[in-house]
Amino acid sequence: MINVIILGSGKVAKHLYTAFKVIPEVTIRQCYNRKGILLDDAQAQEDITTDLSQLKNADVYILAISDDSIQPVSEQLPFTNRLVVHVSGGKSIDVIDPKNNRGVFYALQTFSHGKEINFEQVPFCIESDNPVDQKLLSSLAGFLSKKVYPISSHKRSIIHVAAVFVNNFTNHLFSIGHDICQEHHIPFEILHGLIEETALKIKEMPPDKAQTGPALRNDTKTIEKHLNTLSVASQKEFYSTFTKAIQTKYGKEL
Amino acid sequence: MINVIILGSGKVAKHLYTAFKVIPEVTIRQCYNRKGILLDDAQAQEDITTDLSQLKNADVYILAISDDSIQPVSEQLPFTNRLVVHVSGGKSIDVIDPKNNRGVFYALQTFSHGKEINFEQVPFCIESDNPVDQKLLSSLAGFLSKKVYPISSHKRSIIHVAAVFVNNFTNHLFSIGHDICQEHHIPFEILHGLIEETALKIKEMPPDKAQTGPALRNDTKTIEKHLNTLSVASQKEFYSTFTKAIQTKYGKEL
Repeated sequence: MINVIILGSGKVAKHLYTAFKVIPEVTIRQCYNRKGILLDDAQAQEDITTDLSQLKNADVYILAISDDSIQPVSEQLPFTNRLVVHVSGGKSIDVIDPKNNRGVFYALQTFSHGKEINFEQVPFCIESDNPVDQKLLSSLAGFLSKKVYPISSHKRSIIHVAAVFVNNFTNHLFSIGHDICQEHHIPFEILHGLIEETALKIKEMPPDKAQTGPALRNDTKTIEKHLNTLSVASQKEFYSTFTKAIQTKYGKEL
Repeated sequence: MINVIILGSGKVAKHLYTAFKVIPEVTIRQCYNRKGILLDDAQAQEDITTDLSQLKNADVYILAISDDSIQPVSEQLPFTNRLVVHVSGGKSIDVIDPKNNRGVFYALQTFSHGKEINFEQVPFCIESDNPVDQKLLSSLAGFLSKKVYPISSHKRSIIHVAAVFVNNFTNHLFSIGHDICQEHHIPFEILHGLIEETALKIKEMPPDKAQTGPALRNDTKTIEKHLNTLSVASQKEFYSTFTKAIQTKYGKEL
């Protein structure tokens, strides 16, 4: 049995709480957040504390809090030599105060309020100070997911950059597509299937092989027509930048 | 029964051939391409012609050929007053020679060789000169898909621009993610789940609500760290451009 305490009340805290509470081998001993927010509707108020000095004993303390809070909160913890982990993609293991054993428990996924996550296929990047903690974090992640990877802070930060491209920036392209449809009174739903297929395709072929479109074909007439169609300056700029980048990558300079 | 002739031997021609041949209400009477290429391994060579003058009678001639070939090939067709359609997202119905009845049969999807398409959920944008042809194209699309939309050439060209953003440009972001992983010897597969979730999420919430990441949070420390991590100039440029665009859109100017 692994005893867990979750600190934080944001999206990751809530998703981890929901996932752990149905795992027989895991007990969520307590949760902490400053406002005493319940992590789900069924949680008992007495399982939440708003006072770090009231934290119980546990095998692992999960800091599911904002990047900038990891260091100060880890410093304020009123104990030493226990296992304290953060869940951040971009932060080094070193931001946790070294008075405790340190670790990282990073789920490589995008979390939203109100959208359930099936953790089974979510890669967990774990890291720790020592082999005993590594084994514990590996077990803990293994209860949730089939994909557990020991990853150093440096490699994790690289993965995080790549994740920003394929998730955050991709979603911004979706939002541009949404804006274009909205401007012309076209339901965005018409693009849903295309978006899904675009994402699923890269499981079957590398993205370089999946590239299509006017830029790749060097179809200057369509490119010009598209630039004339776009009415928003930032959309035109993205269109030109991507077109140039695709043509440079695949050897067809404008 | 609708008699169809497919002209072309590219991805769309092959995918339409494969899809139509199992539809009882559709007969593929013949195919045409300049080199006599079979559209699948089971096709009989005598069902292909390389000579436009040998084209048989059919209810609809589908020009599944490159955008620039639509006009010249439609001009070379040795008959008049039949229904001739193209499958292009970006081209107007008007590029087809008006000696025949004209139409558009555009499947809003990304096609690749060797990756099967389930057309059932693929939106078909159809357009025609007259109500009789419109009904025929609507039936034909309806045999393949549950989603058939009558769409004007103007609206289709808008959808096509939006599709370039959510498909072509998105795939380029995936390829940047792939390059970053490869440079640092990280398997790209670790990002597959995130990419899938990013795409599926927009079915449950508009992309503006799904936006996350350092740019949205105005997390300048992570943004700076990421820019320092990236070693390729064009990657840095994309990172800065997207970060600025996201911050402008959501009201947090750099």
